[in-house]
Amino acid sequence: MMNNLKTITLKKESKSFNGYTRFYEHDSSSTKTKMRFATYEPKEKTDKALIWLSGLTCTHENFITKAAAQEFLSDRNLMVICPDTSPRGLDLPGEHEEFYFGSGASSYLDATSEGYKDHYNMYSYVNEEIYTILQEEFGIKVISIFGHSMGGHGAISIALKNPKKYRSVSAFAPVVNPLKSSWGAYALPRYFKPEDVKLWREYGSLQLIEDGYKFPGKILIDQGGADEFLNVHIHLDEFEKACQTGKQELELKYRIGYDHGYFYIASFIEEHIKFHDESLSFSD
Amino acid sequence: MMNNLKTITLKKESKSFNGYTRFYEHDSSSTKTKMRFATYEPKEKTDKALIWLSGLTCTHENFITKAAAQEFLSDRNLMVICPDTSPRGLDLPGEHEEFYFGSGASSYLDATSEGYKDHYNMYSYVNEEIYTILQEEFGIKVISIFGHSMGGHGAISIALKNPKKYRSVSAFAPVVNPLKSSWGAYALPRYFKPEDVKLWREYGSLQLIEDGYKFPGKILIDQGGADEFLNVHIHLDEFEKACQTGKQELELKYRIGYDHGYFYIASFIEEHIKFHDESLSFSD
Repeated sequence: MMNNLKTITLKKESKSFNGYTRFYEHDSSSTKTKMRFATYEPKEKTDKALIWLSGLTCTHENFITKAAAQEFLSDRNLMVICPDTSPRGLDLPGEHEEFYFGSGASSYLDATSEGYKDHYNMYSYVNEEIYTILQEEFGIKVISIFGHSMGGHGAISIALKNPKKYRSVSAFAPVVNPLKSSWGAYALPRYFKPEDVKLWREYGSLQLIEDGYKFPGKILIDQGGADEFLNVHIHLDEFEKACQTGKQELELKYRIGYDHGYFYIASFIEEHIKFHDESLSFSD
Repeated sequence: MMNNLKTITLKKESKSFNGYTRFYEHDSSSTKTKMRFATYEPKEKTDKALIWLSGLTCTHENFITKAAAQEFLSDRNLMVICPDTSPRGLDLPGEHEEFYFGSGASSYLDATSEGYKDHYNMYSYVNEEIYTILQEEFGIKVISIFGHSMGGHGAISIALKNPKKYRSVSAFAPVVNPLKSSWGAYALPRYFKPEDVKLWREYGSLQLIEDGYKFPGKILIDQGGADEFLNVHIHLDEFEKACQTGKQELELKYRIGYDHGYFYIASFIEEHIKFHDESLSFSD
């Protein structure tokens, strides 16, 4: 596999549950910056991969270090790829001022505002560039997508708009209605030109469902009951209602007492990996 | 359990595999500083605990965040406690100059040199103070000890000197001969007064075995074959020889291709927890 790596550079690797946890860097055509991502690659060659999208303030390292996923990925012979949560090394206006906008907070959208439109194209980065890297550099044939918080929303919105590209989608505590969250209220007008306010709905999981987008399989959402962001930024009740109206199949798992962090994610990551494995292993 | 916590303060907790990952702070009588530790406490009340000692540069957070141990501790109803690797918040001469001496690098010894003797009493801190906290604050009756690198050595040397206090001992990549490592060569003369050079041997796992100390059960040592420190600082071959001569039972597991980090530890943590659980669950 290593011989095929033409456009990406392996920076670090550690053997891990018989496979390898790896860290790569590459020049991204979407963001026009260097981008970093982490992977777990099981021992046996696989053609099945999961894309994991992390939340606000995270990097490509959080999931691979803290989610305890390698054991279950190894057991099921699945690869995971964890992109960074935004371009890095830039100094755009306001880019580093708030944790919910700019660096570490891309919202996985393609920006249109001055400055940001040249680099903050994380929707295309994930859905096109990372997707192609999986196919061409890692020999992956079938792909599912999941994520956490802002990245859970990223996973759902990307899957809704590209249902043929992803076998399954799941999320932990996804910010499904960024248009209603104060995080989104701050970020969206800064990522889009004023005349592009209509584009906001294309980056709201809830709005996509309302506008008729549909994922052919069940959307699996996991939510901690003690999540401090639940009723402020997450608004799952509204998403559930929209799914009912739009006849989008949804499974919502409430976990009593669990918060928003990686100790919670680690507790249930096995269920999500099993869920995706079942879709990824299904032969048409 | 929470009602008994008189001398320690809970700073943060996250539900985790039905139990809780917790972070505490307390005023230590051994170090005369505030000390922090992390725990995993399973859902059901338990009287069995493991002490984990981390390596150079680590804090009380590394193991609990990166080792993926909670799942297996929960399954077996065991508590773990992870002390910090040194006192913090001090500014002793040379304390923050090298990563292998001073802050983050206590070597789990009781120092006798000027300044350090007042605070760097991590041997007593672990073996007396943490031990008593486990008994009095958490209702623990039986205790085992394990660790990584400097902390693996700490675990072995503490268990060898206190065989009745610990049911079992294991280590990942332990620095068993600090007297031969350049890390120890730098640290030991700074932790001890010149006239206390004889004390060095009391803090060498290898030297303790040579001097007739013995642990009644098997010492389990885990070692990655691609560990960059193996032949520079770890010297397991010498320890193996000393154990043969001293008739100390030892099981040495080499893991081909694994390095020195937590991706390696996570890959084999289940085996170590199982090993300790068998000793901790044994009724006299």
